[in-house]
Amino acid sequence: MPNRRDCLLGLAGLLTLPHALAEPAPRRHGHLIAVGGAEDRERDRLILRRFIEVSGGPQARLLLLTAASGDPAGAWAGYQSVFAELGAQRVEPIDFRTPQEANDPAAVQRILDADGIYIGGGDQRRLMSVLWESQAARALHLAFHLRGCCIGGTSAGAAALSRQMLAIGEPALRPYRDAVSLDIGLGLIASAIIDQHFNERHRLGRLLSALALRPDLLGVGIDEDTGLLIERGRAIEVLGHGAVTLIDGRQMRSNVREVDPEQPLQMLDVRLHLLPAGTRYELVDTDPETPAPPPALRQALELLVRPGPIRG
Amino acid sequence: MPNRRDCLLGLAGLLTLPHALAEPAPRRHGHLIAVGGAEDRERDRLILRRFIEVSGGPQARLLLLTAASGDPAGAWAGYQSVFAELGAQRVEPIDFRTPQEANDPAAVQRILDADGIYIGGGDQRRLMSVLWESQAARALHLAFHLRGCCIGGTSAGAAALSRQMLAIGEPALRPYRDAVSLDIGLGLIASAIIDQHFNERHRLGRLLSALALRPDLLGVGIDEDTGLLIERGRAIEVLGHGAVTLIDGRQMRSNVREVDPEQPLQMLDVRLHLLPAGTRYELVDTDPETPAPPPALRQALELLVRPGPIRG
Repeated sequence: MPNRRDCLLGLAGLLTLPHALAEPAPRRHGHLIAVGGAEDRERDRLILRRFIEVSGGPQARLLLLTAASGDPAGAWAGYQSVFAELGAQRVEPIDFRTPQEANDPAAVQRILDADGIYIGGGDQRRLMSVLWESQAARALHLAFHLRGCCIGGTSAGAAALSRQMLAIGEPALRPYRDAVSLDIGLGLIASAIIDQHFNERHRLGRLLSALALRPDLLGVGIDEDTGLLIERGRAIEVLGHGAVTLIDGRQMRSNVREVDPEQPLQMLDVRLHLLPAGTRYELVDTDPETPAPPPALRQALELLVRPGPIRG
Repeated sequence: MPNRRDCLLGLAGLLTLPHALAEPAPRRHGHLIAVGGAEDRERDRLILRRFIEVSGGPQARLLLLTAASGDPAGAWAGYQSVFAELGAQRVEPIDFRTPQEANDPAAVQRILDADGIYIGGGDQRRLMSVLWESQAARALHLAFHLRGCCIGGTSAGAAALSRQMLAIGEPALRPYRDAVSLDIGLGLIASAIIDQHFNERHRLGRLLSALALRPDLLGVGIDEDTGLLIERGRAIEVLGHGAVTLIDGRQMRSNVREVDPEQPLQMLDVRLHLLPAGTRYELVDTDPETPAPPPALRQALELLVRPGPIRG
């Protein structure tokens, strides 16, 4: 009976992926790191250090994907020396300006071979307009799901990790329906909407606006210099120096369908969990010495660590 | 058997209140209006209009208490013409600069005789340093509890309505223990901590900081030009143009006792209710046609409408 990997490799073949996948590295089960932007590149650099570590260390094949940026060369220049200082020896930029470039077989193969891919900031709409239904996006899925490649994203790169992506968001003192519009992201996280620069730019109002439209999803607000590390199906950890705000509106009652699109919303019984850097929760093989999350948080975390289906 | 009012009048006598209370007006059961500051004085003036109305209309005896302000004459000037334009015919300023003045029998009698008292903005510490344990503060309690006098307060005047008052609060991107210090307020609201200019000044972090210290209390964040009307024991309504954010941390788990005072706090399972202007909930004699609040909100509202004990 074929196992899951064989099936997916077969599927990849059917979809005319250009080359075979490299052998999966052992003992890696796929990490995502969603970073709220402005991660430290000068002092302790906790987030980038951890990205290198979970990607496999100094010898890991790392890519900096600059497709969200209007200045890809500048984006690469901003990371190149930092990665070098942190000991990463095999880091390269990768960029796509057009959907055609995102189907280029050589570029797609570089993604398939990578141990860690870091998606830089810019505009998540630019990123998705290039990657949407591309072979490069499929390769990101295969690398993550099959080889356990670590995929990090900062700012726009974080917003695009989930299936439902906050495409446009107005500053909103209070939530209202037209404050945001949603679009499709990379889909590596199944059930969340991610917002970045969260407390620094006072984005609770706009994230609540998004949850009013999609109360089935978790709201994930990530501060600057803060990373949410998700170990697929297993654990979460908050890296860096700020906090992650988890907002769970699955039992919420709102009036979003009854009021005008610019009218402030009523939102009742929203659950909020504030997780500062240093927070770590394991959901499997839990250590009996470690405090378990309260049930409401555990339910939210179980949703958060669940990956999206493979787009292979 | 003496009724509650007789007992309290007796108590007032023991406490050497200077004069008898005026007869209670019929059918009033005591309203509080906590206003988040910057209430409209030029356009529809919904909040001040409603203050006059629940105080008894154009003939109501109204006082503007300016003791929180560093410029009491200016504070009075800012309201005098507005009240006049709204048809209130019997409005006067009342001010105390010292605790001695707040024990002046004539001034105390004016409070006892009032139908509505509006506490202006400024600094809640200034207000309480003058009113603390004064006859004027006792008179406020007696007027509210016995005569159903309406007591409104804006900004600092709103913060001081509750028993636990946010005395000092730093801007806080994220909650931490030393962000706030609490002190004793007027105690007309038993179980809340009120913060004002709430969304405009991005005060979620500091209100959460306060709730980490006092998770037994409700956090009440009131936006500018927004009033929370509390009908004692019966109902709440949101006036004006913004929203009231209710934060209920009674089932929260936080690490406030374990971390350094400036370290960001972990706060898990906080309930949040966002109530825009126009929201009204009745807790007694409810109309079966009106949607009932969800149970989590109802529990919070039951706490909110409960008055503090009389300081008579």
